[in-house]
Amino acid sequence: MKASFHARHLAVVGLGLMGGSLALAMRDHADHIAGVDHDQRTRDYALKRGMVDCASDDLYEAVNRADVVILAAPVRVIVEMLRMQIGSYLRSNTLVIDIGSTKQDIVDAMASLPIGVNAVGGHPMTGKENGGIEESDRSLYENRPFVLCPSRRTTPAARLHARSFVETLGALPIEMDAERHDQIVAGISHLPYLLSATLVATVARQAEQDPAYWELAAGGFRDTTRLAASDVTMMGDILSTNTKAVATLLAQFRMQLAMLETLLIAGDDHQLSESLQPLRHARKEWAENYENGR
Amino acid sequence: MKASFHARHLAVVGLGLMGGSLALAMRDHADHIAGVDHDQRTRDYALKRGMVDCASDDLYEAVNRADVVILAAPVRVIVEMLRMQIGSYLRSNTLVIDIGSTKQDIVDAMASLPIGVNAVGGHPMTGKENGGIEESDRSLYENRPFVLCPSRRTTPAARLHARSFVETLGALPIEMDAERHDQIVAGISHLPYLLSATLVATVARQAEQDPAYWELAAGGFRDTTRLAASDVTMMGDILSTNTKAVATLLAQFRMQLAMLETLLIAGDDHQLSESLQPLRHARKEWAENYENGR
Repeated sequence: MKASFHARHLAVVGLGLMGGSLALAMRDHADHIAGVDHDQRTRDYALKRGMVDCASDDLYEAVNRADVVILAAPVRVIVEMLRMQIGSYLRSNTLVIDIGSTKQDIVDAMASLPIGVNAVGGHPMTGKENGGIEESDRSLYENRPFVLCPSRRTTPAARLHARSFVETLGALPIEMDAERHDQIVAGISHLPYLLSATLVATVARQAEQDPAYWELAAGGFRDTTRLAASDVTMMGDILSTNTKAVATLLAQFRMQLAMLETLLIAGDDHQLSESLQPLRHARKEWAENYENGR
Repeated sequence: MKASFHARHLAVVGLGLMGGSLALAMRDHADHIAGVDHDQRTRDYALKRGMVDCASDDLYEAVNRADVVILAAPVRVIVEMLRMQIGSYLRSNTLVIDIGSTKQDIVDAMASLPIGVNAVGGHPMTGKENGGIEESDRSLYENRPFVLCPSRRTTPAARLHARSFVETLGALPIEMDAERHDQIVAGISHLPYLLSATLVATVARQAEQDPAYWELAAGGFRDTTRLAASDVTMMGDILSTNTKAVATLLAQFRMQLAMLETLLIAGDDHQLSESLQPLRHARKEWAENYENGR
């Protein structure tokens, strides 16, 4: 049975795609929604569409009466807010959930919040190719995993409260510690981004001599390089707060690549096929489950 | 002005997605279309849908009266046909075009055809995620680049004839030598496939210890690994006939990856961003042109 969730004063800090979609999805589950964003046009848009009841660039103003605060900013901005100011702005018993893409640094920073403030790290496994509040979609979180990571400010009650918030979004709560989360996303998200960007770098280098590389590139190149178009500030934030896990996965990747390359160069077609076939099956099986689950 | 193309007897050898789509697109530009496929169900399907006028598993029967023959089989099957038997089956002045994914081995094998047979290497830059004749689509070739590579059996007249065939398909002919073609596709297609498969291998290895890798993987992983689901026989063929170019690109890729990794591990966020930003722009600019051109 899903717990019912209701906020009196919900504050959403950061009104991009993720924050905007969250505000839309929570519209009927909060008496009042305050949005915080440094961009005037974003605030105007959110107000005009009725996504929030008030919008401000003043963090204090938005969160000082809140009983639930969602931090939907880039990872290092979240860390900075948690360490520097937000703790003194919050009322006791406020629930803080962030939705940053890496969790260890954020959960560590949550420990510096005053005792009495409840805080849980979060990471919804959803998104879109293009960001921005105009892309907001109330169903963005539906049926998608939403990781919750405990911090030193996660009481048993806060944990249940955070779960019921996630369920109210229509998402699927998955609890795990921040270190495990960061290792997993290094593999499924940050490594893919680096490979995608590096592939573009490799082809761009060749294309300096021969522009036909760009001319002939088609669907396979488009898919494999899609992540390379991600916002660089966001990705820089993510990579710099997950360096160790990403570097570990890169080392694993190199090992796997060297194995395939050895078979390729040796002309061992049989063994190369034997190595590629289970990867094809694993990818197809995963993709079927993924598409069915959406 | 586009040249008009008409075949009396068109033979399509291999009735998969590519051959089937080609037969559909040429329906009004050939008096008679003969299909060749070793699979009975594929032949029945092609006949039933009127994609071909006759279907056989006998190469001689299908091509001995043809004035135009399209080889739409895996690369090594094409090479084998060119080297072993098809030359003695063909009438003088027949135009042979293949649509294999690598060109050097095929163009080399074309040189063993009898003088009087005209042969041009071809590679249409199009496809679909799933193959098979049921996926055939008469517009598959439309507005897509179609590379043409001369062989020792390409007369000036054959070259023009091949161009007008490509234009009749609705595709955009691009002429280049086979070596250049193979280098380009190593970068835009074969390297992306290897990276995609290696990424699956890396994550699958981690997921043996922690199945949550599969559970949390989402859209970015789906896109980056799509090529890993490609047919392994086809990809093995492609890789084994383009080993040198692929190995060269792999070496370039490793260099580029090492540069980004060095900045990452050194924590040089500024320089990392400076390196990633132009890659983002290059990818976005390419993708806009690509989508507009389709």
